[in-house]
Amino acid sequence: MKVALAQLNYIIGDFEGNRQKIIDSVKRAKSQHADLVVFAELAISGYPPRDFLEFDDFVQRCNDSIYDIATYTDGIGVIIGLPTFNPPGKGKKLRNSAAFLCNGEVESFFHKTLLPNYDVFDEYRYFEPNNNFEVLEYKGKKIAVTVCEDMWNVDEHYQYVITPLDEISKLHPDFIVNISASPFNYYQPVIRKKVLRANIQRYGLPMVYVNHVGAQTELLFDGNSQVMNSNGDSLLELKYFEEDFGVVDMDSAEPTKDHSLPGKIESIAKALEMGVQNYFSKLGFKKAIIGLSGGIDSAVTAVVAANALGKENVYVVLLPSQFSSNHSVSDAEKLAQNLGLTYDTIPIKDIYQSFEQTLKPFFQDLPFGLAEENIQARARGVVLMALSNKFGHVLLNTSNKSEAAVGYGTLYGDMNGGLSVLGDVYKSDVFAMAEYINQKEEIIPRNIISKPPSAELRPEQKDSDSLPDYEKLDAVLYQYIEEQQGPREIIQEGYEKDLVEKILRMVNVTEYKRHQTPPILRVSPKAFGMGRRMPIVAKYLA
Amino acid sequence: MKVALAQLNYIIGDFEGNRQKIIDSVKRAKSQHADLVVFAELAISGYPPRDFLEFDDFVQRCNDSIYDIATYTDGIGVIIGLPTFNPPGKGKKLRNSAAFLCNGEVESFFHKTLLPNYDVFDEYRYFEPNNNFEVLEYKGKKIAVTVCEDMWNVDEHYQYVITPLDEISKLHPDFIVNISASPFNYYQPVIRKKVLRANIQRYGLPMVYVNHVGAQTELLFDGNSQVMNSNGDSLLELKYFEEDFGVVDMDSAEPTKDHSLPGKIESIAKALEMGVQNYFSKLGFKKAIIGLSGGIDSAVTAVVAANALGKENVYVVLLPSQFSSNHSVSDAEKLAQNLGLTYDTIPIKDIYQSFEQTLKPFFQDLPFGLAEENIQARARGVVLMALSNKFGHVLLNTSNKSEAAVGYGTLYGDMNGGLSVLGDVYKSDVFAMAEYINQKEEIIPRNIISKPPSAELRPEQKDSDSLPDYEKLDAVLYQYIEEQQGPREIIQEGYEKDLVEKILRMVNVTEYKRHQTPPILRVSPKAFGMGRRMPIVAKYLA
Repeated sequence: MKVALAQLNYIIGDFEGNRQKIIDSVKRAKSQHADLVVFAELAISGYPPRDFLEFDDFVQRCNDSIYDIATYTDGIGVIIGLPTFNPPGKGKKLRNSAAFLCNGEVESFFHKTLLPNYDVFDEYRYFEPNNNFEVLEYKGKKIAVTVCEDMWNVDEHYQYVITPLDEISKLHPDFIVNISASPFNYYQPVIRKKVLRANIQRYGLPMVYVNHVGAQTELLFDGNSQVMNSNGDSLLELKYFEEDFGVVDMDSAEPTKDHSLPGKIESIAKALEMGVQNYFSKLGFKKAIIGLSGGIDSAVTAVVAANALGKENVYVVLLPSQFSSNHSVSDAEKLAQNLGLTYDTIPIKDIYQSFEQTLKPFFQDLPFGLAEENIQARARGVVLMALSNKFGHVLLNTSNKSEAAVGYGTLYGDMNGGLSVLGDVYKSDVFAMAEYINQKEEIIPRNIISKPPSAELRPEQKDSDSLPDYEKLDAVLYQYIEEQQGPREIIQEGYEKDLVEKILRMVNVTEYKRHQTPPILRVSPKAFGMGRRMPIVAKYLA
Repeated sequence: MKVALAQLNYIIGDFEGNRQKIIDSVKRAKSQHADLVVFAELAISGYPPRDFLEFDDFVQRCNDSIYDIATYTDGIGVIIGLPTFNPPGKGKKLRNSAAFLCNGEVESFFHKTLLPNYDVFDEYRYFEPNNNFEVLEYKGKKIAVTVCEDMWNVDEHYQYVITPLDEISKLHPDFIVNISASPFNYYQPVIRKKVLRANIQRYGLPMVYVNHVGAQTELLFDGNSQVMNSNGDSLLELKYFEEDFGVVDMDSAEPTKDHSLPGKIESIAKALEMGVQNYFSKLGFKKAIIGLSGGIDSAVTAVVAANALGKENVYVVLLPSQFSSNHSVSDAEKLAQNLGLTYDTIPIKDIYQSFEQTLKPFFQDLPFGLAEENIQARARGVVLMALSNKFGHVLLNTSNKSEAAVGYGTLYGDMNGGLSVLGDVYKSDVFAMAEYINQKEEIIPRNIISKPPSAELRPEQKDSDSLPDYEKLDAVLYQYIEEQQGPREIIQEGYEKDLVEKILRMVNVTEYKRHQTPPILRVSPKAFGMGRRMPIVAKYLA
């Protein structure tokens, strides 16, 4: 049997655009004499459609769409994901389904059993789980059609009381098809292959796996759809981070080597570029504006943006205050020149002074402090947003994950933006990204990387005045955020008690700030945003 | 059997404080010779603990707490909610449990079967559902111990394939205990009684119902714990919006009349006051700062804040620009005087001009527009945040739900704040609240209510220049947001196609703004925030 894999980048709710893309791939598969073409989970709607699923109109349009696509299936089978209505009285209103289309008809449906509801996933919010196991019989083969999580209840991922493939395998399928929406994090490419091979080992069956590619706001899909034989050898592997298409003869294809796995920093860089590019193109924006401080975060953000959007579409602005050092300005200028970006320098001194003057009668001679520091960051925020409003450029936020974690940033100031590029990248990894960027030539001036980080909001300020050393900070944050270790466990691992308690307290009392930040491109297994849901008002570790 | 109901206001993760409150109520119940005292769902941790549940340390502390509380249960039974660990290999890591404590021991556990995962609820994210039904045998009675949602699979709420009380009732219980965390919306008091009586009718059993009271950031719990006999007559009913305690003899109490149900606007006002009061007291803040525009939203917000925090704790600031009308200033002053609030007037003209001057070379002689309007709103935002930072006051946001829905507000400007007071109240209801506030005397100057709403960001601006009439707008928004009706359904109900499409488009393309707004006190069945999860990048109705 010849199977085609269509790895596509969908837009949520763009029924017309998604349908057209799908039909094009059906035609392409037919032209290559495929018997079957497989698309991703909820391909028709895009993933994740979130609460649009609560609108009958939305789900109805998805269903209308497959009846239309079915008219293109003369002589070919199609497996494709969409939400379907569950009959009334049988639990939740919807099912997360794989439809099988063939010869002009919508032939049958297979529903998802395991509904992920952790981290960024909310599937149990919408869907009733399946409990009826069947195989698809097509051209003399029995196919186990499964949806994403249905293959994930293996090894250390075990968290469900049912393992769907244990049930389906009793029906003696010839191979497994898994349609997925499995978002990227820098561990995911390795884990995905492990899980595919764990299933192959358990059931002794070949696997066809089709994933989404592209960015849906914060969620980044890396693609890497693939087919493995019953030994776990790769027969076909599609690209990372790009739309791709491939056809494989399940019966005669020769095993090939796995694609080489991307390294952590390289894959973060590629994922972020795709995230920025897709955010703009899917919303219909072209140009970004970035405030360039002379520090490493805005430098790396500018490079990612220039790679994603083209240098002609990135406008950077230097906004020095009376506390900005000379090197900040010259370093930022050098970077803009290296990247070939249009830049302007807009000093905020006069604006700052007018705030100072206006507020003087009300500040009661209290000493310079946080309020004055934040006025500078917020004046910059207003200038950047004014330019954004005037020219229709999207402001990119430059905060990193370490800062976001401990609240080291000004709400309505440097925390502004339509999208946070580095909000899921710890400061230590931002440094590593800078080195990666400079591999071939010095794009980011060396001084930006080597000087001690500073917000430059008061004389001689350094990050290290307020924060622990970034290496220690990031290590503790990783334990708390990614590993969900509590204070006792982190201290047991050898970190100083005072340091751990200080850091955890900073994280917990700044939830209110993160509540109001832009969406963050997710590259780690636990990003701030939809995947991490914390109370704002709470006393635990506060 | 004498049963005590303890309706308490917990702080999430405040194990010491919650434990002490609980022990005090156990002692109080003992002193009144109760046989049993009942607390709410997840009382030990506070509700909702959200992703703190992913920390073993957090759950362990909950479990430690009940073993401590058990030492106070000599001669009395206690039913209380907490998260417990589910044995490994049996699905998700936790259960949402009711513990029965008695005579110094933790005697037994009853686990929640139906895990709400819609709107603001995320319980399936953490908990494995129960599938083993037992009764509590205590002092010769059989008690059906259930947790919140377990009694909600009745009537039109039917959405689960299991109805736990159908199973438990086979064991012939004498009465039902339901421990709840059932947040307020203005329909909830009526629906709650309907659901209690639907259960009583179905099973012919008395019901003991204990709810939370108090605010957990955006979620407001109205209390109203109660006991009904097997005819559905009220035997005991605790207060709305206040901590309360009561004891009832299940065998001999006389039926009483139901408490009168609060009206929609009155209950919204009470809920919002509790929400503001609790936000401040639980975070340890005393004082609020509010920007007073002379419009109705900031006026109603100031009244709610003054009622919640005391007039001495509300500082209001008038921030006129060159476009502010004289009446705006005088109306705002009059309101501040009526309420006895400290107020200052801080004109933003100089600040606005310094932005204008600084940006002039970069704005390329483009005409006055949105950018300039937003600079004014953002200059106000910076001034208010500067005062907030300087004096440790929390800025209250004054946006209403109609504005939030269509994005009629400036991000990082008037959308700023630690908490949104009216973000779940449509403009039409803000008017009704103003009338309610003025019932006895004119607190809000009549002109604030009667003049046409205006943002006053350009000469002669009116809301009606950009927005449909609020009555129509709110009606369509209600259909789309609260009722989840799609465009076709709303048009079928008789609204003009162009109007509906315009409004729905405005809602959908401004998700990015609502993503960055403060938490909103929830008073409706569908508030912006954790209960409404929409993609930011999407083409459906955009």
